[in-house]
Amino acid sequence: MIIDCHGHYTTAPKSLETFRQRQIDGLKDARLAPGKDSLVIGDDEIRDSIEGAQLRIQRERGTDLTIFSPRAGGMGHHIGNAVTSALWSGICNELIHRVCALFPKNFVGVCQLPQSPGVPPANCIAELDRCVNEYGFIGCNLNPVPSGGYWTDPPLTDRYWYPLYEKLVELDVPAMVHVSASCNPAFHFTGAHYINGDTTAFMQFISADLFKDFPTLRFVIPHGGGAVPYHWGRYRGLAQDMGKPPLKDFLLNNVDFDTCVYHQAGIDLLTKVIPADNILFASEIVGAVRGIDPETGHYYDDTKRYIDKVDWLSAADREKIFSGNVRKVYPRFAARAAQ
Amino acid sequence: MIIDCHGHYTTAPKSLETFRQRQIDGLKDARLAPGKDSLVIGDDEIRDSIEGAQLRIQRERGTDLTIFSPRAGGMGHHIGNAVTSALWSGICNELIHRVCALFPKNFVGVCQLPQSPGVPPANCIAELDRCVNEYGFIGCNLNPVPSGGYWTDPPLTDRYWYPLYEKLVELDVPAMVHVSASCNPAFHFTGAHYINGDTTAFMQFISADLFKDFPTLRFVIPHGGGAVPYHWGRYRGLAQDMGKPPLKDFLLNNVDFDTCVYHQAGIDLLTKVIPADNILFASEIVGAVRGIDPETGHYYDDTKRYIDKVDWLSAADREKIFSGNVRKVYPRFAARAAQ
Repeated sequence: MIIDCHGHYTTAPKSLETFRQRQIDGLKDARLAPGKDSLVIGDDEIRDSIEGAQLRIQRERGTDLTIFSPRAGGMGHHIGNAVTSALWSGICNELIHRVCALFPKNFVGVCQLPQSPGVPPANCIAELDRCVNEYGFIGCNLNPVPSGGYWTDPPLTDRYWYPLYEKLVELDVPAMVHVSASCNPAFHFTGAHYINGDTTAFMQFISADLFKDFPTLRFVIPHGGGAVPYHWGRYRGLAQDMGKPPLKDFLLNNVDFDTCVYHQAGIDLLTKVIPADNILFASEIVGAVRGIDPETGHYYDDTKRYIDKVDWLSAADREKIFSGNVRKVYPRFAARAAQ
Repeated sequence: MIIDCHGHYTTAPKSLETFRQRQIDGLKDARLAPGKDSLVIGDDEIRDSIEGAQLRIQRERGTDLTIFSPRAGGMGHHIGNAVTSALWSGICNELIHRVCALFPKNFVGVCQLPQSPGVPPANCIAELDRCVNEYGFIGCNLNPVPSGGYWTDPPLTDRYWYPLYEKLVELDVPAMVHVSASCNPAFHFTGAHYINGDTTAFMQFISADLFKDFPTLRFVIPHGGGAVPYHWGRYRGLAQDMGKPPLKDFLLNNVDFDTCVYHQAGIDLLTKVIPADNILFASEIVGAVRGIDPETGHYYDDTKRYIDKVDWLSAADREKIFSGNVRKVYPRFAARAAQ
């Protein structure tokens, strides 16, 4: 079984974006704010939006199931306030739930959280609980930059985040560290902000002792861990200079990386440097890069091809990367699969 | 000849830091502000600070010359205002000049610029001119984040920066894109802010057409290009999705990467993915990571060892990486060497 741990509903029906635009317009003029019930999306629309895209790609590439969450760039936590994010997250998560209900063999849900800059993460607990207990979701996406590129909230290791971590531990679900759109003109969203978010989070984990306080808390760092595996020597060395244990012992019981790295040399490095126990297959479809690589003739984001070509991975390693690690990192997936 | 294009004066005499602290104290209470003449550093102090550190390391590792600039983390452009930065840059650059004068075979200077958040980069022109024409410096370090981690200035491709670029082109000197310390608690400086700065700058270059306006402007992106070579497929794909030419044609006439990547797998990837024409040897001594890698028994930042072990580089490629590319990217170095 091949599980893609990182897919977003980037192909949702247009009416979702229209609703969001009306919500944003409503921030300036309350008379324009849409009621939740004004958004009506039929099951057929959802089927159509999935069958020609994520589902077709699963079939073409030979993957079985995608851990699926709302469009990351669309979370837009910097827009409006906590009320804005609560309504928007609720709607986006419900749509994911409907996708998973329509295609239960192909998708398992992960939720977006109703974050807002400066609003304590404890405010996300109710929605997380609802998504896990009512919808059967198995994890969440946690945005370390609700400000959308200004980095005004505390590091992920700050006690500010602890109430949410307590809930993650209680529910036994992991968080993927995933930023949203950038409203800072310095940062291109998928080319800079996403990768910086990944790199920054890992360095925050090195600089503190978060997992002493939460030994069972788990994070997945997407996009191949940002810059981290490429600079693995730098991170090992920085941790050493700070008197921390070797990274393998210090962080790799709690932190994993996905395989959203869109060329062979990158996947080669990832699988050389990071233990197979800490790599989760993912392609981020339909996602950040949509073209075909003229150097290979295949889609850049067809990451399974790169992993298939790595000849130093044992059969056991491959099984871990393609599905075994998901069962470990997302215990609720394993419980569900066992049913 | 082996030229290290990226070294900082991290071992400057203590009195320099004391002066800086007094300058910072003077921002709160003008009576505490030190006069420039209150800082007195003798030639012997400078010799001592270099001989046991950078010069010893050059000898031990078999490198010949370092392109040398003030401590990057110490630039602190976010501290004070334009007057603060003007005085501090002048002092730091003068010290680099004195190091280069004392050890003319071992060091060539690159200057720090008197940047401040929100202050037009044109304000740096006089100091750049002075350092190049009076001190014989061959380049500068350009900080894309004078705010020290809040990214409040325009992207490097904005016309805001153009007057400085006109001067760089006129003087025929490149800029290394190098951030300074982070005053944002989200970003560890050498582990996140440095790497993010590199990644962000490259993506800014992809997103615009800066080099149409400045076909001879050159940037070196340090720390192995941040996350860029590891995600080379992503960057090629993003450029393609934006309708840009292949990166090799679009950016690699103007943008180069150094080799400050502190493990073998990272250097392997860099030299596989980036053409040898665009890689400049560097180690960032005495720098970000100071320890010995227990996996190799050698210093993490002894990057020459990693390059020596890459067996697919031809003798011609090695010559480019170790010295030839410096002559191309820093024309004033070539002119100086020819004398």
